[in-house]
Amino acid sequence: SEKFNISDHPHRRYNPLKDEWILVSPHRAKRPWSGQVDKAEVAQLPSYDEKCFLCPTNTRVSGDVNPDYKGTYVFANDFAALMQDTPDAPESNNPLFKIMGVRGLARVICFSPDHSKTLPELPVEKIRGVVDTWNEQINELSETYLWVQAFENKGAMMGCSQPHPHGQIWANSFLPNEIATKDKNLKNYYDHHGTNLLLDYAQAEQKDGTRTVVETEHWLAVVPYWAAWPFETILMPKQRHIRRMNELTEAEKDDLAVAIKQLTCRYDNLFEASFPYSMGWHFAPFFKDGRDIEHWQLHAYFYPPLLRSATVRKFMVGYEMLAEAQRDLTPEQAAEKLNAVSADVHYKQR
Amino acid sequence: SEKFNISDHPHRRYNPLKDEWILVSPHRAKRPWSGQVDKAEVAQLPSYDEKCFLCPTNTRVSGDVNPDYKGTYVFANDFAALMQDTPDAPESNNPLFKIMGVRGLARVICFSPDHSKTLPELPVEKIRGVVDTWNEQINELSETYLWVQAFENKGAMMGCSQPHPHGQIWANSFLPNEIATKDKNLKNYYDHHGTNLLLDYAQAEQKDGTRTVVETEHWLAVVPYWAAWPFETILMPKQRHIRRMNELTEAEKDDLAVAIKQLTCRYDNLFEASFPYSMGWHFAPFFKDGRDIEHWQLHAYFYPPLLRSATVRKFMVGYEMLAEAQRDLTPEQAAEKLNAVSADVHYKQR
Ligand SMILES: O=P(O)(O)O[C@H]1O[C@H](CO)[C@@H](O)[C@H](O)[C@H]1O
Ligand SMILES: O=P(O)(O)O[C@H]1O[C@H](CO)[C@@H](O)[C@H](O)[C@H]1O
Repeated sequence: SEKFNISDHPHRRYNPLKDEWILVSPHRAKRPWSGQVDKAEVAQLPSYDEKCFLCPTNTRVSGDVNPDYKGTYVFANDFAALMQDTPDAPESNNPLFKIMGVRGLARVICFSPDHSKTLPELPVEKIRGVVDTWNEQINELSETYLWVQAFENKGAMMGCSQPHPHGQIWANSFLPNEIATKDKNLKNYYDHHGTNLLLDYAQAEQKDGTRTVVETEHWLAVVPYWAAWPFETILMPKQRHIRRMNELTEAEKDDLAVAIKQLTCRYDNLFEASFPYSMGWHFAPFFKDGRDIEHWQLHAYFYPPLLRSATVRKFMVGYEMLAEAQRDLTPEQAAEKLNAVSADVHYKQR
Repeated sequence: SEKFNISDHPHRRYNPLKDEWILVSPHRAKRPWSGQVDKAEVAQLPSYDEKCFLCPTNTRVSGDVNPDYKGTYVFANDFAALMQDTPDAPESNNPLFKIMGVRGLARVICFSPDHSKTLPELPVEKIRGVVDTWNEQINELSETYLWVQAFENKGAMMGCSQPHPHGQIWANSFLPNEIATKDKNLKNYYDHHGTNLLLDYAQAEQKDGTRTVVETEHWLAVVPYWAAWPFETILMPKQRHIRRMNELTEAEKDDLAVAIKQLTCRYDNLFEASFPYSMGWHFAPFFKDGRDIEHWQLHAYFYPPLLRSATVRKFMVGYEMLAEAQRDLTPEQAAEKLNAVSADVHYKQR
C-alpha cells in the first residue's frame, strides 16, 4: 500500500503555542484560481507626500504638526481603540453576559521620515532605531499596563490605511486572549519538560534546517512547523533565554536589525512587490504580582496573507472560520520558496 | 465622576462558546477611513452563464457534465482539501513536531440552477430544499466521519471563486479546533449549571430583545453579545433542545427556510448590495463512542466582513491577530442597523 508522503498527503500539524491544529493540504495548491484578485501594492512612492499625515512637518487630523524628525517619530493615535480613563464597567455575574472595563492607549510609530521606504529598504542602522523605539515604548508603558502590543500592519491588504512606513503600539490594562493562551501553553511545557518551549524549538529548527528562512549570529526566522498562513514566520533568539525586549544586549539588537532586514527583503523579493503582513512582538507580560515568567521567550510573528502571487491571497474563511485553519502548501515548501530569493539585494535595487 | 456608558466606552465582552474575550471600541467607528476600498459585489448576473462550472448542463474542470438539475445539486469537489484514502502519517512523540493523519472528503452544493439568485432571492420552498440537502448530506457522511462541516462562502471578498450560489460540505475523520473547543465549553456550562448554554442564551436574548435581528415561530437570530465581526449573527432554535439537524421537525425546517430568507434579506438590504459572509452549521459531533452530547444545541453562525459600506470591510489584522479581536460598534448598534432595513422586501425587488 501507498506510503505517507508529507509533501503530498493531507495531514494535521499541532501548534503547541496555541494548543490547536492546522490542516495541511499540499495538493490543493494545484487547483486553478478564478476568485478575487487584489491590487498589488503601489510600486514606487515619493519620499515625501504633502498629503500624508505621517510625513515630517505635515499637519495631522488632530491639528498637531509633525516635527521635522530624522529617525523614528512616536505620537498618540488620534483614533485609539482604548482610553486611559474609561470609568469602570458594572460587574455582571451572568456567564452569558460577562463584561469587563478596560483602559489603555494607542500610539503610532513612524519608522522613518522617508514616505517611500518600508523596513527592507531602510539601512540597518535605521531599523536598529526602530528596535530602540519599540524597546523604549514598551519599557515606558510596562510601568502602567499589563500588556503592550507592538505591531505593524503593512499594506492595504492588511487594513493599513497609511502607506507611510509605520507601526503601532497598543497598551492594555488586561491580558489579551492570544497572550493569555500563550502564557498557559508555555507554562505547561515548562512544567512538564523543565525547559523553555521556544528555546527547545529554536534548537531543533537549527538542527533540521528545512524551515529556516533567515539565520544571523543571534536570530533565527523559520516558517513554523505549525504555520497557518502560507508564508508565516516566527523570529526568535537562537540560543539565549530572553524573556523581554529590554534583556537584549547591544549586539543582539544590532543583529536583530539585520535579521529583520533580511527577512523582509526575502518577503518583498518573493513576488517582487511590497509584501503585505501583520507582524508583532510577544514576550513576558508585565504581571504586577511577581508571578513566574521563566517560561517566556521573546519572539516576533509575521502573518503575511499572500499565497500565489502579489495579487492572490489566502482566504481564511468558511471552513477556516468555522472549523480549522487550512493551508495549501507545506511550511517546508514555503521556506524553500523564500530561500530561493535574495535576503540581501532588494528587487528594486537590481 | 463620569458613568460607564456601554455605547461609548471601550470594554471587553466574554464569548462563552470560545472562552475568550472581544474588545469593543464603539467610539472608533468615528475615525475617517482612507484605507482599502473593495469592489462591491456585481449587482446583476444572468440566470445562466455558459462559462460557469456550476450551472446546469455545463461541463466541469473534471470533464463531468452537470445534469439539468431543478433544485439543489451536489457533486464531489474537484480540488478537495481532504482525501478518503490518505495513508496513515507516521507517529511522532515530539510535542514540537506533532503530526496526525487525516481522511475526509469535500462536496459542493449548488443551491439553485439559477446562476443569479443567492439565498435571500430564492423562494422559501427552494431554501427549504437547501435545508433538506444539508440534512441528507450530513446524515450520510455522519456514518463514516466524526465531523461534517456544512458552510457557505458568499462573495469574492470571502474567497468565493464562483458567483453561482453554492455551499460546501467538508467531512473530517477528526474533530476540528473550533468544534473541539465548543464541545468543551458547552460541556463545562452544562456540568456547572445543569442547563444548555444555547437554550439559556436564546431565552435571555428573547427577553432582552436589543440584539434580535430575526424572530420566527421556531428560530431566533441575534448579533451575539460577544460578536467579533461587525454584523455577525447566530441563528438558533428558540426553545426546543435540538442536538443535530436530523432532529428538526418538518415545521421547524419550513420555518428555518423563512428565518434564513429574512436574515439574508436584511443583510443584502443593509448596504443595498449582495452581502458577503461565511456561514456554517455547528451541532453535536458524531462521536462513535456513545459519549454524552446533551450539552449541544444546533445553530448556525454568519460571519460577514463588511463594516462601513458595501466596499469597506473590517480588517481583522495586527492587534486582532496578535492579541485580541476588536470591534468598532456594539452588537446592539449592529442589530439596530439591521433592524432598520426590511426582512421581507429585497432591495432588488423595490
Ligand atoms: O473552496 P474554495 O471556495 O475555492 O476556497 C475558499 O474556501 C475554502 C474553505 O473555506 C478556503 O480554504 C479557501 O482559502 C477559500 O478560497
Ligand atoms: O489602526 P488602523 O491601521 O487604522 O486600523 C487597522 O489596524 C487595527 C489594529 O490591528 C485594526 O483594528 C483595524 O481593523 C485595521 O483597519
